[in-house]
Amino acid sequence: MSTAATNTALERGRDLTQQLNPNLEAVLAERYDDLLPGFSESLIEWAYGRHYARPGLDLKTRQLCTIAALTALGGQTAPQLKINIEHTLASGASRTEIVEAIWQMAVYGGLPAAINGLNAAREVFEAEA
Amino acid sequence: MSTAATNTALERGRDLTQQLNPNLEAVLAERYDDLLPGFSESLIEWAYGRHYARPGLDLKTRQLCTIAALTALGGQTAPQLKINIEHTLASGASRTEIVEAIWQMAVYGGLPAAINGLNAAREVFEAEA
Amino acid sequence: MSTAATNTALERGRDLTQQLNPNLEAVLAERYDDLLPGFSESLIEWAYGRHYARPGLDLKTRQLCTIAALTALGGQTAPQLKINIEHTLASGASRTEIVEAIWQMAVYGGLPAAINGLNAAREVFEAEA
Amino acid sequence: MSTAATNTALERGRDLTQQLNPNLEAVLAERYDDLLPGFSESLIEWAYGRHYARPGLDLKTRQLCTIAALTALGGQTAPQLKINIEHTLASGASRTEIVEAIWQMAVYGGLPAAINGLNAAREVFEAEA
Amino acid sequence: MSTAATNTALERGRDLTQQLNPNLEAVLAERYDDLLPGFSESLIEWAYGRHYARPGLDLKTRQLCTIAALTALGGQTAPQLKINIEHTLASGASRTEIVEAIWQMAVYGGLPAAINGLNAAREVFEAEA
Amino acid sequence: MSTAATNTALERGRDLTQQLNPNLEAVLAERYDDLLPGFSESLIEWAYGRHYARPGLDLKTRQLCTIAALTALGGQTAPQLKINIEHTLASGASRTEIVEAIWQMAVYGGLPAAINGLNAAREVFEAEA
Repeated sequence: MSTAATNTALERGRDLTQQLNPNLEAVLAERYDDLLPGFSESLIEWAYGRHYARPGLDLKTRQLCTIAALTALGGQTAPQLKINIEHTLASGASRTEIVEAIWQMAVYGGLPAAINGLNAAREVFEAEA
Repeated sequence: MSTAATNTALERGRDLTQQLNPNLEAVLAERYDDLLPGFSESLIEWAYGRHYARPGLDLKTRQLCTIAALTALGGQTAPQLKINIEHTLASGASRTEIVEAIWQMAVYGGLPAAINGLNAAREVFEAEA
Repeated sequence: MSTAATNTALERGRDLTQQLNPNLEAVLAERYDDLLPGFSESLIEWAYGRHYARPGLDLKTRQLCTIAALTALGGQTAPQLKINIEHTLASGASRTEIVEAIWQMAVYGGLPAAINGLNAAREVFEAEA
Repeated sequence: MSTAATNTALERGRDLTQQLNPNLEAVLAERYDDLLPGFSESLIEWAYGRHYARPGLDLKTRQLCTIAALTALGGQTAPQLKINIEHTLASGASRTEIVEAIWQMAVYGGLPAAINGLNAAREVFEAEA
Repeated sequence: MSTAATNTALERGRDLTQQLNPNLEAVLAERYDDLLPGFSESLIEWAYGRHYARPGLDLKTRQLCTIAALTALGGQTAPQLKINIEHTLASGASRTEIVEAIWQMAVYGGLPAAINGLNAAREVFEAEA
Repeated sequence: MSTAATNTALERGRDLTQQLNPNLEAVLAERYDDLLPGFSESLIEWAYGRHYARPGLDLKTRQLCTIAALTALGGQTAPQLKINIEHTLASGASRTEIVEAIWQMAVYGGLPAAINGLNAAREVFEAEA
């Protein structure tokens, strides 16, 4: 693990994904790097190094914010919502906290978005069981 | 203030808005109830009674989730985002936590959505000063 | 059935779903109430009691408006669009009226949204046949 | 006015806008045809000739569907929503029917979209007064 | 093929789809014209005659713009994105140009939209192989 | 200007914005870096270094793709669309190419999105004159 003082955004991103999902970069590389060289590294650096690893907002809250946003955007984000539900559990959130954040989006994104978010959550929970 | 055991969703919603924004229902009633009878009460009951007052997710996290979702949805939600930024400050979040949640949405909703969210935040902070 | 003078939004919502889809609340309860206690009742009260049961706009037009909106929002609402197409038929609309409302959304939501809406309609009609 | 048997989509569109908003094509031509030659004619032909003038769904319902869709899409459609509210009044809808269609979108597009739609309606009604 | 001087938008649209996808109108007619008489012709006239066949922007750039827009709108446009990827290859673009346009949308529509666009591209490329 | 062999994404991004809009980073820094330390550098690195500076798609086409996507997303992106219209002119596109890309989005994002995009273009052109 890199030390805070000298590491780059990419290193900070990698440190963080070790906690949330150690296979993430490898899975992304295998799926996309042939199509787009540099993709997996770029995503880890941008999303995790340049955002999640920033101070000022704790990781669990960051993940719940992501769950809320992906839900409100709509059911087309289901692949990303499901992965982020897994990350949110890894960040220390409970299933209850996750479904509450999703259900609250009925207010801001409408009932279809919220229901499709609940469908994604249930798929993740059932796969875990 | 109503007691937890016997109160309705509307009462729970009113208790909550007392904390977040005591004028909210009156402002909504003055602006919309002539156009749509029952609107303000319905909104307080649905958004605050049926969502924010639910157990299982703390109020400050709920508010930050709303900030994130409204940002990701896009700049057209600016009026609602600004009011919710005020509520989020009232719920105990810092300005830093708010802008971090907004900026993170560059990952999920794109840079335009995030930048327009930052614009809304700055308007609220400048009006406070 | 409850009388108009004394019923609550939940009762009005239940009266209405008896006409549109008598199984709706039970299906929602079976799918979601374990994940989110109170979900099914909350949805019937909010969507049907607080909106569809309101005077001022007839039920068939309300349903066609919902078809149009779900279409314009995009193909990610397909699960909700399909259920609402069934409800719209139950409210007295013809298949022609439904596909015309969907196709008109090519103007406002673009051709992809309209085409994906037509796809949902065809699935519902073929399942009925 | 053209006869039904031999007219083109453009003619049917022009006949319809005579009823809804006689100045529409001229206003669009003045605003946009220098930027995009043929724009105004193309819009009248496509939106009004190819959609609104079609049989199978009455004009007032078509207009209310448009109101609903534009509301659900979000506050960024305010310029188009306002013009269409005027057209919907011209098609025989009441103010009540219009605000009910808009408010119903709180269910499908979320509260921000519905509130921003109510704001647009109020601007149109106040300008009429 | 029709001559430029006298042809209609429908003829210009048909000329163009001969180059991009000769079966397009027939496939659309078979899928949708029973549901909506006149649909396939209307789409060819509007999208291809009234837009793609216009001078002022070359066909390959037009197609890449469509790829970008469908990606940014989100994964729900996957059916349309896939067809348009095929058209974009037919217009002379390389696979690299297509994936670069899609990936750039991570900036404007967010990472979920871009990733779902890459998924659509890969399905098209694998089906070609 | 940095040489291609050894430069970082940030350097490549800065080289590019020198061509498109030399003041961009300074303007962003002045507007946002107090609110979010590191914001301006992060944006230049991500959008311009990690996307626009990539080989495989020429700059002018990249910019037109951005115009198209921002238009299709809707009028709420007007601030970003306007800046990108300026960049697209700087990349060598003509006004005609720009308005054609915007108008084409009537097909994919609907007429409201396209019209609001044309409004943004006209504001930019009028400010230039």
